[in-house]
Amino acid sequence: MPEKLFTMKQTWLECIECGRKSDLLDERNFKCPNCGNLFDVNHDFNFLGMDANELLDLFDKRAKANPFYSEDPCVRSGVWRFKEWIMPFLPKEHIVTLEEGNVRIIKASPRLHKWIGGDIGIWIIQEGMSPTGSFKDFGGTVMMTIAKAGNIKLVIVASTGDTSAMAALYASVAGINCAVVLPRDYVTPVQMIQPLVHGATVITLPGKFDACMTAVRELVHAGRGFPANSINPTRIEGHQASVFLTAQFLKWSLPDYFVVPVGNGSNSSSVGKAIRLMNSFGFKKVPRILGCQSEAAKPLARSWLAVKEQKGKVTMADWQAEYRDMETGETTATAALIGKPVSRQKVMREIIYTDGLMEVAQEEDLNQAIFECGEAGPFVCPQTGTALAGLRNAVRKGEIAKGSLIFVISTATGMKFAEAAAKHSGQGKIVHASDCETETVAKILGI
Amino acid sequence: MPEKLFTMKQTWLECIECGRKSDLLDERNFKCPNCGNLFDVNHDFNFLGMDANELLDLFDKRAKANPFYSEDPCVRSGVWRFKEWIMPFLPKEHIVTLEEGNVRIIKASPRLHKWIGGDIGIWIIQEGMSPTGSFKDFGGTVMMTIAKAGNIKLVIVASTGDTSAMAALYASVAGINCAVVLPRDYVTPVQMIQPLVHGATVITLPGKFDACMTAVRELVHAGRGFPANSINPTRIEGHQASVFLTAQFLKWSLPDYFVVPVGNGSNSSSVGKAIRLMNSFGFKKVPRILGCQSEAAKPLARSWLAVKEQKGKVTMADWQAEYRDMETGETTATAALIGKPVSRQKVMREIIYTDGLMEVAQEEDLNQAIFECGEAGPFVCPQTGTALAGLRNAVRKGEIAKGSLIFVISTATGMKFAEAAAKHSGQGKIVHASDCETETVAKILGI
Repeated sequence: MPEKLFTMKQTWLECIECGRKSDLLDERNFKCPNCGNLFDVNHDFNFLGMDANELLDLFDKRAKANPFYSEDPCVRSGVWRFKEWIMPFLPKEHIVTLEEGNVRIIKASPRLHKWIGGDIGIWIIQEGMSPTGSFKDFGGTVMMTIAKAGNIKLVIVASTGDTSAMAALYASVAGINCAVVLPRDYVTPVQMIQPLVHGATVITLPGKFDACMTAVRELVHAGRGFPANSINPTRIEGHQASVFLTAQFLKWSLPDYFVVPVGNGSNSSSVGKAIRLMNSFGFKKVPRILGCQSEAAKPLARSWLAVKEQKGKVTMADWQAEYRDMETGETTATAALIGKPVSRQKVMREIIYTDGLMEVAQEEDLNQAIFECGEAGPFVCPQTGTALAGLRNAVRKGEIAKGSLIFVISTATGMKFAEAAAKHSGQGKIVHASDCETETVAKILGI
Repeated sequence: MPEKLFTMKQTWLECIECGRKSDLLDERNFKCPNCGNLFDVNHDFNFLGMDANELLDLFDKRAKANPFYSEDPCVRSGVWRFKEWIMPFLPKEHIVTLEEGNVRIIKASPRLHKWIGGDIGIWIIQEGMSPTGSFKDFGGTVMMTIAKAGNIKLVIVASTGDTSAMAALYASVAGINCAVVLPRDYVTPVQMIQPLVHGATVITLPGKFDACMTAVRELVHAGRGFPANSINPTRIEGHQASVFLTAQFLKWSLPDYFVVPVGNGSNSSSVGKAIRLMNSFGFKKVPRILGCQSEAAKPLARSWLAVKEQKGKVTMADWQAEYRDMETGETTATAALIGKPVSRQKVMREIIYTDGLMEVAQEEDLNQAIFECGEAGPFVCPQTGTALAGLRNAVRKGEIAKGSLIFVISTATGMKFAEAAAKHSGQGKIVHASDCETETVAKILGI
């Protein structure tokens, strides 16, 4: 490899347990050789030579321009707009972007507000408005940028469906080979076809996601493949943009809550990391993270709630003692059907840091949420439904203070999960006419 | 209704056959009472008091700003950016927009260029990057704006799937009831569920699209429902933005070709109308329209090609004499599975005006095109596949001059048509492993 793009003093990997440092650009195993735990990406922002005000001015200047008419990757991408907070010392010309992160942030409809209840303001960050239709593109652009800069030839990834589409498309654009490992019977038709269309090698296994993840993890830890999963923490760096976009949208203030569905944990990990970063830059407020899981895959919510009930307060040690992997059940929210979340310790670190909470969404509710959201609002995925239904539960328990300003991360478009919505089409108004006569249609409509 | 938003001298409807004028804001039947033909929307641009240069400056000024951070609907929407060319005399505050039209225009990948062949430059306008995932949102924003301004209570629409999603979402945002009539066995799962999620009443008929269209058309012509189909020509006004966006992208020049899939004909009609509009504003060039249809639904391409072969040149009268509706066959490109295109005369008017041409895409090719396009490029729908495969045929016949600059309208995201791509997944690289062992995966990958 030619000369280093940045030094280990500027940006490095650091084990979340023992603090051992290693070189991001050389790392291939993504496992601490001391204690076996995950890495964080850390930066020494002192090398930037810019204070918070200068950075916010720069971010605002980039945000003013139309991303579709710029040559500057930091204008084209709503993720790289915040480059100095995400991968500050990487030269711009290495960026691999598909203009991800230019997403709408919209107020929830009156119908959705009413369904969730509480005297609160709810906004939806539509991260499904991304090149591959899910929030994964936020992290993917950073991950694939570093992989390309590191001259990687093959990325491998286990996926419940969204990550594989991202990995396949970004790899093909970066000129890197990609192999995705999918659980044969637990991804939607769209999710199965996306990586194929984008040129990846698709391997399906006769198991669930956790089996796919185990295989990929073993290959990665043995140095036999470069991971596109979030054990590669460059992913987390990009996902932080959800928080930065929200803060910028609020003219540089922070909301009271971020609500996220929790599967493998990359989303909640990155929301917390971004909040800590902003706190280090002088923002005082710590928005609380509300992490939501379905009944079918709730290892984190279950353990958090159990400790909360027993002790009133959740500490890392108590949670660790309580935590157990789980055999997952059946849900339409298959993208979060994970019983053994890779980033579980990061998730819990952030929930604890932000004085956050966790909730379980019932299957019926998470599917109904799609319909409550879709009238005069976006068609969201069942994972977003999990977040919305979890928020509703928290409101009903009285956990959410009146007047709270709440931002829900919508992780994917519902178009990737039509079958989930179709199973619950009774929520909508559908009539199958017996013939094709005009008067039959008129009669049904009462016109 | 309160006072008129604009006068009939400024904007009016005009029969495409006999020239009879009627009032856009009062029209409910959408059929010329003289001769029964379709209407165009026409404007007297003299009332604008702005010349071409002033307009282009205004459009450029709007395009510079980030659409996601503006209160101005003409900045937020890539369609209403060109308001003075689309619905010039409508007061802005009536606009119903969901920020449609902010789409990427990207160069086709080397692989796709190679597959299509010819020494030509191919660009793709990704209109599937829209709120409901298809180009229909371009026309929908204008149609629903006028419907709301006209105090309409119910819109009805026949659909092969894309129009219904658009009508349902925009109606729910405008506070208008919506009924969609779908061919039960000829829409994808995503397309069946989208209008339900967005709160429309969905009626399925045991026939094909043409039967649905007949029922809706009869209800509309009898004044019993307000149409969201393109017999409502306000749709066509919005679709013109494809041409305006392209011209602006090219710094106000026009390409050599627009390639479009042809179903009911709204897309090619509006491309031609936009070209004529730009010609009236002093742009000399007339890009040629290449309209493409699948073997399964080729009433326009068949008749055009037959006349071309017999006479060497296609006139309206000769084409009219040759044209016959057709019984449609089987194709994955179901969104264009229309044997009796409503806007056929408009399509042919524009093909003839632009010295355009038509092509038929073979079923195998239009599906393969999805895979050729998707490696280092977007996941497109089979209708876009029809356009790409049709272009390839035109190149092979020597119809496309060397060095031509070609813009292909990609009408929808492939996520709405996963089953189509899945049927042809043999185009991709997929291996079903027999067990979940790490070494099994390693062996498949040769690592």
